[in-house]
Amino acid sequence: MAELTSEQREVEESLVYRVVASFGETPDPRLRQLMQTLVRHLHGFIRDVRLTEQEWDAAIKFLTDCGDITDERRQEFILLSDVLGASMQTIAVNNEAHANTTEATVFGPFFVDDAPHIPIGGDIAAGAAGEPCWVEGTVTDISGNPVAGARIDVWEADADGYYDVQYPDGRVAGRGYLFSDEHGAYRFWCLTPVPYPVPHDGPVGALLAAVQRSPMRAAHLHVMVTAEGLRTLVTHIFVAGDEYIDRDAVFGVKDSLIKEFDRRPPGVPTPDGRDLGDLPWSSVRLGIVLAPAPPHEDR
Amino acid sequence: MAELTSEQREVEESLVYRVVASFGETPDPRLRQLMQTLVRHLHGFIRDVRLTEQEWDAAIKFLTDCGDITDERRQEFILLSDVLGASMQTIAVNNEAHANTTEATVFGPFFVDDAPHIPIGGDIAAGAAGEPCWVEGTVTDISGNPVAGARIDVWEADADGYYDVQYPDGRVAGRGYLFSDEHGAYRFWCLTPVPYPVPHDGPVGALLAAVQRSPMRAAHLHVMVTAEGLRTLVTHIFVAGDEYIDRDAVFGVKDSLIKEFDRRPPGVPTPDGRDLGDLPWSSVRLGIVLAPAPPHEDR
Ligand SMILES: [Fe+2]
Ligand SMILES: [Fe+2]
Repeated sequence: MAELTSEQREVEESLVYRVVASFGETPDPRLRQLMQTLVRHLHGFIRDVRLTEQEWDAAIKFLTDCGDITDERRQEFILLSDVLGASMQTIAVNNEAHANTTEATVFGPFFVDDAPHIPIGGDIAAGAAGEPCWVEGTVTDISGNPVAGARIDVWEADADGYYDVQYPDGRVAGRGYLFSDEHGAYRFWCLTPVPYPVPHDGPVGALLAAVQRSPMRAAHLHVMVTAEGLRTLVTHIFVAGDEYIDRDAVFGVKDSLIKEFDRRPPGVPTPDGRDLGDLPWSSVRLGIVLAPAPPHEDR
Repeated sequence: MAELTSEQREVEESLVYRVVASFGETPDPRLRQLMQTLVRHLHGFIRDVRLTEQEWDAAIKFLTDCGDITDERRQEFILLSDVLGASMQTIAVNNEAHANTTEATVFGPFFVDDAPHIPIGGDIAAGAAGEPCWVEGTVTDISGNPVAGARIDVWEADADGYYDVQYPDGRVAGRGYLFSDEHGAYRFWCLTPVPYPVPHDGPVGALLAAVQRSPMRAAHLHVMVTAEGLRTLVTHIFVAGDEYIDRDAVFGVKDSLIKEFDRRPPGVPTPDGRDLGDLPWSSVRLGIVLAPAPPHEDR
């Protein structure tokens, strides 16, 4: 910050004080804390950078543009949070490393509630284009006890980098859920994940271009696991060797989530005897370890 | 902040580091500075309050709701900036006190470009309901030289607390511009300002209610003065004794902008002989002192 006269510093600091004080009567102490801390950081930002009025105008326009492009199928504010690392930081403060549990990462905007149930060993691709991929593993708690009946939601983009909901035709493909068996084991077919860009035709995409950042996400499969009495896990499997693994647009990669995908040429027999004709395929193992539920978990 | 394990602190700090670094290739050094400082404050906020995932969800929903209600006639993001004091802080850092110049305050959302020109001594009320008010003064530079031909834009709410643009009927009332004469003098009729609420039927209004803050703005008349070679002034005149003077919803009040409005009962002769019938009226003097234009002023 440039050197300020004491008079100017007094003007700025007394304004911060007055705004913080204006939230002093908030009945909910947590909301009071959130707003007062937000005010301190927001004013700190404005003062640190000596934000110009033109820049303030640009910020208002940016938020307005984010609002304009957001609808039921597009969420530019989540995307903004993602590319600023705010989503991952929120996940970090809420999922402190707990023994050897599987780490969490971003939820992303493409989950939908009404994905189909598939049997163990079924295929979530449902006709989406891409290389078949066999995923298997077990769900356990931190003591190594198998978790039977855990619900495992998986979703992913197709070979062209699009989720089903990004197509206008209402298709449901590349998503589904299954339950672990009585030994905590699970297995399913999906597609070998490929990198894809976050939606970048809006204001957040323009920001990424202006700062010369790639919109590409490292290749990943989304996994969410829920089980009675255990903490819900929202995570990805990332593909070892992927070219975007070190510069994921949303900072979602954690080392422990990077897995080796074994690539098989066409004709190699599949684990379940499925005939893939002349397609190559891959396989990966993912052991899932769930933490105990925190008190009052309600997600 | 709660005590963190060194491992957890390392996770959070390394994420901040990576996000800041991701903006390192930004060609425009000012944009780089803005984004990197924004990231530090945004992550600082999330870490300081240990933002929960439910609170993050609520923040995304809040921004989405702000976008939904914003259109050509309603700007919820500006309103949000206003009630957080961010608009006034931006004004503070850009309008450092300069000799005895008239102080600036918030622009607000109700200015429109195509207000009518009125002659000196004319009436900007144009039929809007309220008590007539006579405003006069002179425009000078910091050396006391009169500024002839300064453009003075004024706009205000009517007695019901609404600006013309808030009515759906397209009326133009309570706004206009005039020019100072060859002696820098100006005078016009308007309405005695009254308090009014900021639009509070949207998400920002819900926030104000949740924190038990009033949406009322202290009574004010908006004034913007532009003149060749001088800094554009955006300010208000506030009414001494107004009940909201100490708790203006957008923190716009500065002591130097509070003026005594002389209240006259019906029948007291007016400065220009205008016959107001049985209406009471008021008058106020506002000397306007403009700072020199900063380099590259383009507003
Ligand atoms: Fe994804
Ligand atoms: Fe106003």
